Amino acid sequence: MSKRIMLTIAYDGTDYSGWQIQPNAVTIEGVLNKTISELLGEDIHVIGASRTDAGVHAMGAVAVFDTVSPIPPDKYSFVINQGLPDDIRILNSLQVADDFHPRKVNCKKTYEYRIYNDTFMLPTRRLYTHHVYGRLDTEAMNEAGQYLVGEHDFVSFMGAGGQALTTERTIYALDVRNEGESREVVITVTGSGFLYNMVRIIAGTLIDVGQGRFKPEDVKTMLEARDRTAAGQTAPACGLCLVGYDFG
Amino acid sequence: MSKRIMLTIAYDGTDYSGWQIQPNAVTIEGVLNKTISELLGEDIHVIGASRTDAGVHAMGAVAVFDTVSPIPPDKYSFVINQGLPDDIRILNSLQVADDFHPRKVNCKKTYEYRIYNDTFMLPTRRLYTHHVYGRLDTEAMNEAGQYLVGEHDFVSFMGAGGQALTTERTIYALDVRNEGESREVVITVTGSGFLYNMVRIIAGTLIDVGQGRFKPEDVKTMLEARDRTAAGQTAPACGLCLVGYDFG
Repeated sequence: MSKRIMLTIAYDGTDYSGWQIQPNAVTIEGVLNKTISELLGEDIHVIGASRTDAGVHAMGAVAVFDTVSPIPPDKYSFVINQGLPDDIRILNSLQVADDFHPRKVNCKKTYEYRIYNDTFMLPTRRLYTHHVYGRLDTEAMNEAGQYLVGEHDFVSFMGAGGQALTTERTIYALDVRNEGESREVVITVTGSGFLYNMVRIIAGTLIDVGQGRFKPEDVKTMLEARDRTAAGQTAPACGLCLVGYDFG
Repeated sequence: MSKRIMLTIAYDGTDYSGWQIQPNAVTIEGVLNKTISELLGEDIHVIGASRTDAGVHAMGAVAVFDTVSPIPPDKYSFVINQGLPDDIRILNSLQVADDFHPRKVNCKKTYEYRIYNDTFMLPTRRLYTHHVYGRLDTEAMNEAGQYLVGEHDFVSFMGAGGQALTTERTIYALDVRNEGESREVVITVTGSGFLYNMVRIIAGTLIDVGQGRFKPEDVKTMLEARDRTAAGQTAPACGLCLVGYDFG
């Protein structure tokens, strides 16, 4: 009898062409399908909760798959990790209802965008942060971010090529902070869902605010403009990390 | 007229065969000599303060070189970074006395050893931490570390192949802590100097203590044994980072 298994997945997106399976490209979804199919001897197709772009990282991506294997649900993480490359790890596995679909349930998603804010990039952080040279005003960035909290039409913050049916989304919380004594600035944003490139455009816009090119209250005008050209630049993929989901 | 420039250097050691120049291997020293020589049009040989092993990282390595170039001393960082690969960065440059030799002055050196302590390794930290599965008792590790503080003969903590004239060294401070809410355990050690593999053997021994294979007070017996086989394993290079020097 078939059961549905939910995986929590972490990956270093540096060497991947994003989540979604594609011909002639190495993707997270493609590697998971191949690895799990080989290990279980079944034809496995995972269903991911989100499709991250090329170069984006994850600490808590989620996917489900159906299997007839008798392995206890919490042991799939150990089994599948044996076959995965070391830049992808299953952190947790559990059984969910047979009709649980991770893109068709309401949930809260959290992303982090990390900026390395110093004269020169620290080499050991170059793959996981975006380098911004000039000192950022993180208080102004945080103030600007509060205009995005709530239910809004985020079409000004959607990248070209986005194919969403509606552009209304809810941001539950947005926080900008300096991380300890490091030179890292972390933007954490939790929402009902995000449009194509939305978090990267929010990050790029807040960087513009942090450098004084926009005032915090300009973000309100950007939202109201309903025009992508009103908002700031799209920040690079390497600074973005999918932190996790709250299905509760 | 020649002047002596001191560089503070950060690097991701993952793809390097260590600091010291070698034929048929890519080393930090080799890349610096080649890059600076080409940029300045002089035959430059840097003198490093320490020779880190293959795979070890640095946030504050130090080296000096002599040049007749008219570039203002604080601008060498900007100039040299133009020619370096992005896994090596000069964080700072300044002029020092013509006879300043970074291995012949008294100084304090600080290293960090980072452990990722969870069931599975987080992919984005795999190049910069050593994975330890079972939960570590960091209080016991810190207690054990205090037996190493002070002036001791550290021959029990010297790797095979070490060629030091004397094996007496002074450790000024050693601290083991859990880093925030992450699953990282950080061992920070400051000393007058370190024998071959000494920090990695200290880290391996403290991991053994953290897992209950040794008691904290066993470290005192290991020191007194003056025998490498009395101490613990040598922890892998990827967890080690040269934090910096205090020449004050």
